[in-house]
Amino acid sequence: MEIQSVKGTRDFYPEDMAKRNFIADLWKQVSLRNGFVEYDGPIFEYLAMYQLKSGDEIASQLFAFEDRGGRMLAIRPEITPTLARMVNQRINTLPRPLKWFSVPRLCRAERPQKGRLREFFQWNIDIIGVDDCLADAEVIFCSVDFLMQTGLTSSDVIVRISSRKLIAAMLEYFGVEKEQLEKVYGVLDKKSKIPQETFEKMLEEVITEQAKRRKVLELMSVNSLEQLEDFAGSDKNAKEAIDELKKLFEYLNLMGITEFCRFDISIVRGLAYYTGIVFEIYDKSEQLRAICGGGRYDNLLADFGGPKISATGMGMGDCVLGIVLEEKGLFKNLSQKSGIEYFVAFADDALQNEAIKLVARLRRAGLKADFSYKGGSLGKQLKQASMQSAGRCIIVGQEFTQKGELIIKDMKTGNQETIAANEFFSRL
Amino acid sequence: MEIQSVKGTRDFYPEDMAKRNFIADLWKQVSLRNGFVEYDGPIFEYLAMYQLKSGDEIASQLFAFEDRGGRMLAIRPEITPTLARMVNQRINTLPRPLKWFSVPRLCRAERPQKGRLREFFQWNIDIIGVDDCLADAEVIFCSVDFLMQTGLTSSDVIVRISSRKLIAAMLEYFGVEKEQLEKVYGVLDKKSKIPQETFEKMLEEVITEQAKRRKVLELMSVNSLEQLEDFAGSDKNAKEAIDELKKLFEYLNLMGITEFCRFDISIVRGLAYYTGIVFEIYDKSEQLRAICGGGRYDNLLADFGGPKISATGMGMGDCVLGIVLEEKGLFKNLSQKSGIEYFVAFADDALQNEAIKLVARLRRAGLKADFSYKGGSLGKQLKQASMQSAGRCIIVGQEFTQKGELIIKDMKTGNQETIAANEFFSRL
Repeated sequence: MEIQSVKGTRDFYPEDMAKRNFIADLWKQVSLRNGFVEYDGPIFEYLAMYQLKSGDEIASQLFAFEDRGGRMLAIRPEITPTLARMVNQRINTLPRPLKWFSVPRLCRAERPQKGRLREFFQWNIDIIGVDDCLADAEVIFCSVDFLMQTGLTSSDVIVRISSRKLIAAMLEYFGVEKEQLEKVYGVLDKKSKIPQETFEKMLEEVITEQAKRRKVLELMSVNSLEQLEDFAGSDKNAKEAIDELKKLFEYLNLMGITEFCRFDISIVRGLAYYTGIVFEIYDKSEQLRAICGGGRYDNLLADFGGPKISATGMGMGDCVLGIVLEEKGLFKNLSQKSGIEYFVAFADDALQNEAIKLVARLRRAGLKADFSYKGGSLGKQLKQASMQSAGRCIIVGQEFTQKGELIIKDMKTGNQETIAANEFFSRL
Repeated sequence: MEIQSVKGTRDFYPEDMAKRNFIADLWKQVSLRNGFVEYDGPIFEYLAMYQLKSGDEIASQLFAFEDRGGRMLAIRPEITPTLARMVNQRINTLPRPLKWFSVPRLCRAERPQKGRLREFFQWNIDIIGVDDCLADAEVIFCSVDFLMQTGLTSSDVIVRISSRKLIAAMLEYFGVEKEQLEKVYGVLDKKSKIPQETFEKMLEEVITEQAKRRKVLELMSVNSLEQLEDFAGSDKNAKEAIDELKKLFEYLNLMGITEFCRFDISIVRGLAYYTGIVFEIYDKSEQLRAICGGGRYDNLLADFGGPKISATGMGMGDCVLGIVLEEKGLFKNLSQKSGIEYFVAFADDALQNEAIKLVARLRRAGLKADFSYKGGSLGKQLKQASMQSAGRCIIVGQEFTQKGELIIKDMKTGNQETIAANEFFSRL
């Protein structure tokens, strides 16, 4: 019986796993140096949790199932609802602000396409309990810090920043009803992904009055905060939102990442729960979906039965990022990093037992070591050593039987030295 | 709306995550030093894959679901079928022997109980393409190498080793039909977990003849390979299996782990696909299920549509292991490891901007650094520094405004030094 993998999932053979680890290890390293601590939740939760606040797109892409007790469960399509649940459960004992990160495996029943799979990994960072947009700036800095660490520069990627508070204020200022806001966000979020004509048609469905629609279209063509100020006139809410964005850009300037960042009114985000500053990071080639996206979601904890506590965060998947890193040649030295330190070869099959003993000692001393199970000619064994990217080869030959000496061969330079086994181990 | 987590799953708050990472990081480290390379597969596969060879227990505990295309899928309850599928797919290009490891997240719809949850992590190591029991010895050595690395000794844990080939030979020698073998294995595997009376009743169901049953019971009381040799008489298959076990113990002796290992005829393993040497490692208190188990499965690749290639491996879950490490106090220095290196405090709110700049520089230099978003008194900020287990605190005060100097406070000793900011950064 031959069995296939499921479409939209990935097999991580060792060379693929090295790339996945390169990304995930760097996510962890950058999270930690930015003061975040790691958490995780279960791979499945109650289905209802994702139907509550994740928005229609995610809710329609759930892998749902019933367990034996008749409970409706779903594989997690995102981790933010789990985060909200976990924080609410310990709201009285957890110190605030919380700076948490996670690298969850997520599943969405999407049609697989470039940069989008049915199973992926997503870096999440969140700051909970800080109203000031300094927290939003920190989230953006941490994201950019990671991208810079991979070798990407401001010529490669751009952070597009806007504010749901701002868009809400402007829409209300134009006379769009509060109840319509969420639907309008859904349409605005699609703007850059669909033809202008389709966009205008979709907008017509959620804003029937032509005059209001014209104003929304005009708003969408605004290019700078200054231009926006003229446009917003004396509307108090809009002014507040603009001032917050200005403050955010000042923080980003202090952090030294202004060259990466730009105000972009078209950024709205697809998820239903955003309430304030929102951002997305794009590869400048503009051929791919967003590398990451995030923003403020001040109501989610309360929506999940907890107190009203502000929160802001970001999610970055591994699929689009992986394409960008591959295209720019930034997966570096992966095979070298995965190599072993010592390969122990034996000149005669009768010496395999000595090799077994040496390898066990090396490993117990914390060194990456291996040997051939089959033995055979030294040439064959050295070939295996190369395949395992061994740094050095230890040869157990007649010098060992006669004088207890080992030959240590440097696999890069080819240099050899002979050394007493005892001395070799005492040097380690 | 208040939402709970699903019973039998775990939330990993940062302190729990630190323990999970302690285990997983060590699994990876020990795998690499034993010459294994990492792989992974998808979290779900076709349901049929797990109904084929995993055995009744696992097949009855699947989280199965139908996707939109009407395909029946299941969350993985183990990773060995995925391994077999992946190896078969590239059988002609992969070098052999393969030494692969993985740390998959797995789910089983079990009744949650001590050491057994519905979601867990399992370290898997496998060697593919080696007939000789040297590969089985390597798998056992690697498992023990990990346990020793956590701080466990041969006073804490024991490796119980047997052979399916041996049991098969003996059962056939007693006249048990080949078709019955799998059912008999299932009963024998339960022996140590159920009362003797229940065991005998179950045995009666699969071996109806009393004379054969008595022999099986006698076999189960054998304590050593020597005793077994007398018992097996001149049966060729039994002798072969016994010789293989003897050879295995010789290898384990060369590797220096004899004191951990014991022959134990009662080890059979629950999974259906084992064919040769099998083993389980137990905490010596005998209060818990096996810490890990493994063995040879020479037919699985062929069962999955590939060529007949021999394989042997091991799986170690994180639940029982976690209980053992907790009981023995072996989760060490976790909060210290998770701490930041520098906390930047500011003596005056007007200096927060300077702190923001310093922190960004520190992080870009690769250092774990953080600061207070709210500011407030220095005392308050130093308290936050302690909570984040900061190694050092940098104080930005009037010396900074006046002379560009920073105060560096060692949080352990309390010692302070004053240093020019430029000099501080050039020293990093």
